[in-house]
Amino acid sequence: MTYSELDSLFHPRSIAVVGASPDPYNMSFMDVIVEHGFPGNVYPVNHRGGEVLGHKVYPSVKDIPGPVDYAFLQVPAKATIEVIRDCGVKGVKLAAFFTAGFGESEIKGGSELEQELLRVARQGGVRLLGPNCMGFYCPAAQLSFAYNLPQESGPVGALCQSGGHSGQLVRAGAQRGIRFSKVISYGNAADLNEAELLEYFTEDPETKIIIIYIEGVREGVRFFQALRTATRAKPVIVFKGGRQEAGVQAALSHTGSLAGSAEVWDSLLKQAGAIQAYTIDDCVDIALAFRFMNPPRSRRTAVIGGGGGATVQAADECSSAGLILPPLPNEIKDELKKFLPVAGNIFKNPVDMSGVHSFQTIAQSIKLVGDWSEVDLLITHIGVEIGPDAMMKRNLLEPIADVFIRATKEVGKPAALVAYAFYTAPACLGILKVQQMCCEAGLPFYPSIQRAASAIDKLIRYHHAR
Amino acid sequence: MTYSELDSLFHPRSIAVVGASPDPYNMSFMDVIVEHGFPGNVYPVNHRGGEVLGHKVYPSVKDIPGPVDYAFLQVPAKATIEVIRDCGVKGVKLAAFFTAGFGESEIKGGSELEQELLRVARQGGVRLLGPNCMGFYCPAAQLSFAYNLPQESGPVGALCQSGGHSGQLVRAGAQRGIRFSKVISYGNAADLNEAELLEYFTEDPETKIIIIYIEGVREGVRFFQALRTATRAKPVIVFKGGRQEAGVQAALSHTGSLAGSAEVWDSLLKQAGAIQAYTIDDCVDIALAFRFMNPPRSRRTAVIGGGGGATVQAADECSSAGLILPPLPNEIKDELKKFLPVAGNIFKNPVDMSGVHSFQTIAQSIKLVGDWSEVDLLITHIGVEIGPDAMMKRNLLEPIADVFIRATKEVGKPAALVAYAFYTAPACLGILKVQQMCCEAGLPFYPSIQRAASAIDKLIRYHHAR
Repeated sequence: MTYSELDSLFHPRSIAVVGASPDPYNMSFMDVIVEHGFPGNVYPVNHRGGEVLGHKVYPSVKDIPGPVDYAFLQVPAKATIEVIRDCGVKGVKLAAFFTAGFGESEIKGGSELEQELLRVARQGGVRLLGPNCMGFYCPAAQLSFAYNLPQESGPVGALCQSGGHSGQLVRAGAQRGIRFSKVISYGNAADLNEAELLEYFTEDPETKIIIIYIEGVREGVRFFQALRTATRAKPVIVFKGGRQEAGVQAALSHTGSLAGSAEVWDSLLKQAGAIQAYTIDDCVDIALAFRFMNPPRSRRTAVIGGGGGATVQAADECSSAGLILPPLPNEIKDELKKFLPVAGNIFKNPVDMSGVHSFQTIAQSIKLVGDWSEVDLLITHIGVEIGPDAMMKRNLLEPIADVFIRATKEVGKPAALVAYAFYTAPACLGILKVQQMCCEAGLPFYPSIQRAASAIDKLIRYHHAR
Repeated sequence: MTYSELDSLFHPRSIAVVGASPDPYNMSFMDVIVEHGFPGNVYPVNHRGGEVLGHKVYPSVKDIPGPVDYAFLQVPAKATIEVIRDCGVKGVKLAAFFTAGFGESEIKGGSELEQELLRVARQGGVRLLGPNCMGFYCPAAQLSFAYNLPQESGPVGALCQSGGHSGQLVRAGAQRGIRFSKVISYGNAADLNEAELLEYFTEDPETKIIIIYIEGVREGVRFFQALRTATRAKPVIVFKGGRQEAGVQAALSHTGSLAGSAEVWDSLLKQAGAIQAYTIDDCVDIALAFRFMNPPRSRRTAVIGGGGGATVQAADECSSAGLILPPLPNEIKDELKKFLPVAGNIFKNPVDMSGVHSFQTIAQSIKLVGDWSEVDLLITHIGVEIGPDAMMKRNLLEPIADVFIRATKEVGKPAALVAYAFYTAPACLGILKVQQMCCEAGLPFYPSIQRAASAIDKLIRYHHAR
């Protein structure tokens, strides 16, 4: 299939939800599709008939009056063959399966059923996504696979072998300013697989950054070739599930994947120029650096924030991630001492400005340190940990965050802001608010220096390798 | 000083807050002490006179009418000598200094001032805490060093060279069911230092678990001897600040500490039998395992929860931390299949029970897997990540968590519960609620499998070494 043929699969004009149920406790994609505001026709299909969310239910795909581009199946595995045969007759282009119980499961004949399904689909000219997946999320098509996901598109594309991780990725990204071109949950990869999807994302002009969660390969050689091509064009972040023996076993039962050895994967991913991640948060951390930071000219970094222990820790964590913290020159020290009290602050790099009570002084300090010509990166951090409740009580967190964000942005260098302490509910909500303010300002937000430094390290490595 | 002499320092009957200010934007310990409900007399001292929070201000410590056990100083460094001289005259036993600007700072003569302070204090029979610290938190004495900390005592004692980290430790611990005997912020350690304080905590019958945040040693040989003695009596968790060169430099400016090389510290801590941690959250994670889990008889662990990708990740993370996940025997598989649908679930270890919609089935599955005679540990996890909003919308998270907690507790083996997704505000508040429910049930709560497994690994290592 060409790029545009594949692309049209992810922009359907009408959808059949086969197995749609009015039971709200049954994972209902009707509900999700309607909530997200899909503009085309949505046809629930169920032999029981009736209505779902005000839409007339048709007994089979064949009975639907208008054309159907995309069918989403949530019916038992054994019923899928007939549905796919109907889809072929109806001219459905793509069918995605929430349905599990195929090659991944312990059900006898599951693998054979998956093979048969593929045969019937090919006969009818229907492409398959899954089985055992969540379908796809494509904001441009106003189509979602989970509740309450952003309506706006963005430059991150993801192919994700786990449905749960797909949802988690969009949700985690959404809160941190990441928007997606498409997120494709592809489960068992019986037909559309990791290789073809990666080739699609590589060609896709809407996608500037690719994230992959993968358990095993269906077409190993093609995938690694595609990966090498992809990494030359855009950053590709890969989270490999099934690294340890127990994980390999779990992957086999999750998506029927032969997960392979971690050592082999590590080496192949490295050769292909991919960026490895180990959790979904890790994927978002790295994507955030690529999305909102220009390539830093060097590893030379200035760090400024509040808290003595936090400053020591910031220094340790930046250094461990390979960032370089050049010593603060006397000119800047002397300037800082004009408005920062000497007692209780640290005039090194990182700078500790704990003993500060004026917004103006915070802004001045950040700008002075950030503008320093010897550094090409700036990390600022808010020491909420010293007393989140005190800060919250006095409504100081938001104004302080505002000063930090403005000053950090004004410096104009690649930069990140860190704020921590997810302990009490008010502190937690306060941090989420700071995160939102950062999103709005286009400044990457991290909940720890360690996570910021690690993501920035990966950004630098990627650009350095090119 | 004997144990009981030291202990009496942390149970003062009356307090002088020297430099107390009515300015709410000035870090005011008066406010903290009064908020926490200290039952003894509290005397603000300030040459400006007047009142602070309804308490009459005295011009000097000498002018206070009653006896004073403890003086907390928040005055400029240069004023401290006179205050300590007055404290000696008044019979104050312990003086703690929020005041900075001594050996740690770039102020000329700071180190000499610290020496002079110590000389004057010794002359007057006053013990010093700090300077450049937060004092101490002792719930039994109804004395706090920060707002809104728990009133109840508990079995964890901490000595913490950073004031910020001290507060963060109590706050993070409080939310997760950890209560403290005392948390002593000791800053520059001019007088009371890491060695003497560790000896105190080792003898302290109220303290069953010790946490140390340390940047450098004042009495190295004595400290490592004390550490070896301490680890024989109780678990000692050590977070060493100032590991990398930039961190060593920051530590020197933070508490005047010579932080030393990370390799030397790692080896000395290992020899002494201490448990290393790398963040405050890490300290709490480990303390939580010691606090709420009996020593597991082996590393053989059962894991059960929801989410396919989460299950693969759980397997990888448990294995990476050295936990053993024995394969699930056919008897248990067959039992599970009686009530868990085969499609969409994983009948291995970890067990994935994603395709479950009944509370009873969740409880049955957890108990069946937890009671399995081949495992000595149980980790259950709630796959909130699949759709936190959906779960929140339907108010399902709390009832599901309740079922998980009850079933996990009923198994009776060392166990932990994991729930993740701190993304949206409702999900975040939901997770905090689950955490609170776990606290009430005495079940250790972790926000990721990786953190749970890593803490449990350290618990097992400690008991194994004995």
